[in-house]
Amino acid sequence: MSGKEPIEQLSSIQSEIVMLSQTANVLHWDMETQLASGGVAQRAEQLAYISGLIHTKATHPRVGELIGLAEQQAGTLDAVQRQVLRVARRDYDQAVRLPQAHVEAVSRETGLANHVWAKARAENRFEDFRPHLEKLVELNRQAAEYLGYSDHPYDALLDGFEQGMTVAQLDQVFGEMRQGLVKLVASIAAVPQVRNDFLTRGYPADKQREFGEKVARDIGYDFSRGFLGISAHPFTIELSSDDVRITTRYDEHFLPTALFGIIHEAGHALYEQGFPSGIKNTVLASGTSLGVHESQSRFWENTVGRSRVFWQRYYKDLCQAFPAQLADVDLETFYRGINTVAPTLIRVEADEVTYGLHVIVRYEIENKLIAGTLAVKDLPEAWNARMQE
Amino acid sequence: MSGKEPIEQLSSIQSEIVMLSQTANVLHWDMETQLASGGVAQRAEQLAYISGLIHTKATHPRVGELIGLAEQQAGTLDAVQRQVLRVARRDYDQAVRLPQAHVEAVSRETGLANHVWAKARAENRFEDFRPHLEKLVELNRQAAEYLGYSDHPYDALLDGFEQGMTVAQLDQVFGEMRQGLVKLVASIAAVPQVRNDFLTRGYPADKQREFGEKVARDIGYDFSRGFLGISAHPFTIELSSDDVRITTRYDEHFLPTALFGIIHEAGHALYEQGFPSGIKNTVLASGTSLGVHESQSRFWENTVGRSRVFWQRYYKDLCQAFPAQLADVDLETFYRGINTVAPTLIRVEADEVTYGLHVIVRYEIENKLIAGTLAVKDLPEAWNARMQE
Repeated sequence: MSGKEPIEQLSSIQSEIVMLSQTANVLHWDMETQLASGGVAQRAEQLAYISGLIHTKATHPRVGELIGLAEQQAGTLDAVQRQVLRVARRDYDQAVRLPQAHVEAVSRETGLANHVWAKARAENRFEDFRPHLEKLVELNRQAAEYLGYSDHPYDALLDGFEQGMTVAQLDQVFGEMRQGLVKLVASIAAVPQVRNDFLTRGYPADKQREFGEKVARDIGYDFSRGFLGISAHPFTIELSSDDVRITTRYDEHFLPTALFGIIHEAGHALYEQGFPSGIKNTVLASGTSLGVHESQSRFWENTVGRSRVFWQRYYKDLCQAFPAQLADVDLETFYRGINTVAPTLIRVEADEVTYGLHVIVRYEIENKLIAGTLAVKDLPEAWNARMQE
Repeated sequence: MSGKEPIEQLSSIQSEIVMLSQTANVLHWDMETQLASGGVAQRAEQLAYISGLIHTKATHPRVGELIGLAEQQAGTLDAVQRQVLRVARRDYDQAVRLPQAHVEAVSRETGLANHVWAKARAENRFEDFRPHLEKLVELNRQAAEYLGYSDHPYDALLDGFEQGMTVAQLDQVFGEMRQGLVKLVASIAAVPQVRNDFLTRGYPADKQREFGEKVARDIGYDFSRGFLGISAHPFTIELSSDDVRITTRYDEHFLPTALFGIIHEAGHALYEQGFPSGIKNTVLASGTSLGVHESQSRFWENTVGRSRVFWQRYYKDLCQAFPAQLADVDLETFYRGINTVAPTLIRVEADEVTYGLHVIVRYEIENKLIAGTLAVKDLPEAWNARMQE
C-alpha cells in the first residue's frame, strides 16, 4: 500500500502510539496534580478510552506483519532501527495477549483508585481504599494469566518493569540484601545516634520549593522542558521528550521529604531529558527499565545529595533560606543528620539503608497478593508485622 | 451490525468524540496554564493528532448513514434525542466539508501561535507574532472557502460561534450600537470623572486570588468540579461536565482585572456546571452559542458584580483583604470607581460601556482580515486608528 520500508511504516504507527501515550500522561499528570474530586469519574473514563485506542493501534494485525517483514530485513537496519524493532516486537507480543476490555479496566480502575488512595492516605483510612486495591490486585492477577509465566504469576508482571527479572532471582538477591541490611540497621541502632532534631523544625513550603528548584536547576534539570508540581505521591512523568515533569510534596515539619525528593525526581528527569534528539518522542525514549531509572534517581539523591562535598557547596545557601531553623547547626552536624539511619514507615522518606528494606517488604507483599497467598484485607497486618522485624 | 437503534449507535460514537474533545481540552488547559516553552512543539503535534482523530471519527460515512436513519425515525425520539440529532446533523455537515489535513493544521498552528502570542504580548513585540497570525488568518480564509457562504467569507466562520448569524445582520446591529456607544462615551467624557485612583494601588496577587475564590464560590462556582488557574488570556474550559475550569491573570497594580475577570469566567462556568445530568458529557453539554455564553458571563460580571447591592454585601470583605489600600475609600466611592467609563486598550479589562466598542472593532478587523481587504502587517495601524476614534 505504501512505497515505504516496513520499518518506516512501523515507526509511523509507533509515533501515533507515542502521541497517545503522551496524551494519556498529560491526563495522568493533571489528575495527580490538579483535578478536583468531582472530575475523577470522567477522567477515569477518558484514561480508559485513550488506553483502549492505544491497544487497538498496538495490536492491529498490520503491526504484527510489519514487525515480521522488518525482522526479515534486519541486516539492512541501522542501530536505532534495530532497537526500535526489538522494542516493537516485545511490546506487540505482550499487547496481543491482553484483551482490550482488560486494558481499559486497568486504566479506569487505576484512575479511580488514585484519588481514593490520596484521600484515604490523608485521613489514614485504609478501609476506604481496600475495595479499590482488591480490584487492582484482581486485575493484575488476571493480567499475569493473560501474559503467561513459567514459575510465578508475579514474573509476568515483573517483566514489564524489569525485563527478564524473575521471582527466583529476586528472592536470592533480596534475600542476601535483607540479611545484610537487617544486620547493618541493628549495628547502627546499637551505637549512639546522631542529632537530627533540626530536620523537624518549621520549614515554610515556598522556601523549600525555591531551594529545591535551585538545586534541581544546578544539577541540570531543564525547567524550560519541565515543571515542578505537587502531588500526594512524588513522581516523574514524560509528557513528551521535551516536557519531563516532576512532583514533590512539602512537609513543613520534615525538611528531607521535599529536599531529597526533588533531587531524586530530578535524577529520573535528567535521564529522560537527556535522550539524544534522534530518539526523542519514539518508543526508545522512556528509559531501559525501572532498575536503571532508579539507579539515576538514587545516585543523585544519595551518592550526590547526601554527600559531604555536596553540602560543602550548598549548606550556606540552605542556611540563607532557613537562617533561624539552622542557626545552631553546623555543616558537619547537618551532614550527619541527613544521613541518620532509622526505621520509618514511608519508603519515599526513608534513609539510604532502610530504603532497600522498604523495597524488599513491598516486593514480598506484592508477590503474595499476586500469588493469592495474601488477601488485601490482611495487608495492613502483614505490612505492620514485617515493618516490626 | 447491532441491534441498537440508529440514535443509540450515533450517541455511542458521539461519546467517543466528546471524550477526545475533552482530552484535547486537557491538552489546551495545560498548554495555557503550565507548559514550558520547550514542550510547545510536541504539544502542538499532540493537539493536531487528537484533532485528526476526532475528524476521522466525526466524518466517518457510517455517522452520516446513522444520522439519516435517525432522522427518518425522528417521530419516535424523545426531546433530548431530537436535540442530539440536530447537533449531530449540523456538526457532520460542517465537518465533512473540511479536509483532515486542514483540521490538523489549524490545531497545530493554534498551539504554536498561542505560546508565541503570550510571549510577544509580554514583550510588546507584534512582529514576533505576525507570521503566526498570518498563517492562522490564511487557514481561516481557507476554512471559509471549504465551509461555503453566500455573501461574506466571514459568515462561514461566524456560523461556528453563533449559528445563523451573518455579516449583514452584525453590520446593522453593531452599526446602531456603535453610534449609540460612541455618543454615550462622549457624553460621559464631557462630565467630571469619578475618582478611581485607588484601583491602581498595590494589591498582592494571593489576596486577590483568595477574595476572587470566595466570590466565585458564593455565586455558585463549584470548586469540587473545577479549578481557578492563571493564564495570559483568561478563559473557561470544560475538561468534562464535572470539571469546568477558569483562569484569570493578576495585575498587582490594577484590581479590576482579576476581580471582575474571575466573576466573568465564573459566569461562563456556572452555565457549563449547570447542565442537567441527563446531558452531561454529551454534545449538548457545551452551551448554545457564544452569545448566550457571554450573556451569562457578562450578567455576573456587570449586572451583578458592578452593582451597588453586590458591594453593600462584599465591600467589607474586600476592605478586610486590603485594609491599607482601601482605608480612604468608602462604599459609594468604590462603587462609582469600579463603574468608571473610560477608553482602554484591553478588551478583557474594559468597562461595561467601552467593552461593546472593543467587540465591534475586533469584528470589523477580523471581517476585513478574512475578506482579504486588510493584511496582517497593517493590523496594528488599523487597530490603533480605530482605537483613536
